Amino acid sequence: MIEFYGYFRSSCAYRCRIALNLKDVPHSFHSVHLRRNGGEHKSEAFLRVNPQGLVPALRDGALLLNQSLAIIEWLDETQPGLAFLPPDPAAKAQVRAFAQMIACDIHPLQNLRVLQYLGNEFDADQSAKDAWCQQWIGDGLAACESVLARQKDPSEFCFGNAPGLADICLVPQMFSAARFGVDTSKMPRLNAVYSACQNLPAFADAAPSKQPDSET
Amino acid sequence: MIEFYGYFRSSCAYRCRIALNLKDVPHSFHSVHLRRNGGEHKSEAFLRVNPQGLVPALRDGALLLNQSLAIIEWLDETQPGLAFLPPDPAAKAQVRAFAQMIACDIHPLQNLRVLQYLGNEFDADQSAKDAWCQQWIGDGLAACESVLARQKDPSEFCFGNAPGLADICLVPQMFSAARFGVDTSKMPRLNAVYSACQNLPAFADAAPSKQPDSET
Repeated sequence: MIEFYGYFRSSCAYRCRIALNLKDVPHSFHSVHLRRNGGEHKSEAFLRVNPQGLVPALRDGALLLNQSLAIIEWLDETQPGLAFLPPDPAAKAQVRAFAQMIACDIHPLQNLRVLQYLGNEFDADQSAKDAWCQQWIGDGLAACESVLARQKDPSEFCFGNAPGLADICLVPQMFSAARFGVDTSKMPRLNAVYSACQNLPAFADAAPSKQPDSET
Repeated sequence: MIEFYGYFRSSCAYRCRIALNLKDVPHSFHSVHLRRNGGEHKSEAFLRVNPQGLVPALRDGALLLNQSLAIIEWLDETQPGLAFLPPDPAAKAQVRAFAQMIACDIHPLQNLRVLQYLGNEFDADQSAKDAWCQQWIGDGLAACESVLARQKDPSEFCFGNAPGLADICLVPQMFSAARFGVDTSKMPRLNAVYSACQNLPAFADAAPSKQPDSET
């Protein structure tokens, strides 16, 4: 059975939880607590699973995988059910680009290790950290909104009438936006997609507060 | 003909240049200077190409694409020649994960806009910015080295005996590592792959100093 390593608050683990739910993949869960025991992600045991020392990670027999987008595309290619990407290369590239706008240009900047560095090395207090996050999340989501605003016929989800890779990345990022006090009131398409997703159990059940390791 | 928008020093544009060269794709080049005219990537003209206001971007007729990894996988799926990814889903996921370790967890933190923010908001001087870059690039590349060190039979390139997506991402990141003074002396596999790549014209010709908009 697939073993999934995550942490309730990790945005990247949240993406994978949605993907696992959308495909209804049986799996076991290993909690990797980022703030306990000096950071369980830095333990020798976990570094053998993922030398990068970050969640999420996935084990399937001898196969070890890290990086949420790689995990999600692997699930898409190996598990039956809903397709996370359209088959046409151009359409597929646009969905991937949207996901990467979040995964490469927004989320990495709000990561726990980055916020800890800002505090330790630049004496950033909570309000300075929040301003930092608001800058990158706000700018990044505004660009995401602009991309969707170019569509001639707005669909229920980011790209089409079923959820896919773009929505899988958007929902955890919108959740983080709220957590860091980002104003998303001028992002009607993103909010509409977020609401549509939250109506689906695969998304709602993946929320941080619903996880066995949740502290909220 | 494909139109490519880039900047000589952009690590993400560098990745795309390697991919275009490896596939020998005819294309025209538009220079988007990140430091001139208040940043040409922020111009209205360029924002119509890429609402995110970042290079690289690509236009193919009516198709507009952004995000380097999405562009590279689109090239892989639509252009003949060398395959950037292996066909097997598990092997493919491992190559993608390696590329994403660079594209999601190293490079975004050394981006120009991020370093500018550190200077403007946290009074970071050049040595503080270098220390920041050294932290994320050094940790990230050490994890990349660990991933390759797990392979039973080291190959000439990251994964196998032909270059692919992982190498396409690694070479610009190693170039940046040297630029920011990161010590890579304990990363023998990465250095061996870097050397093997530099022996190929597709990689060597994509170097920042070889570009028409180069200032070095």
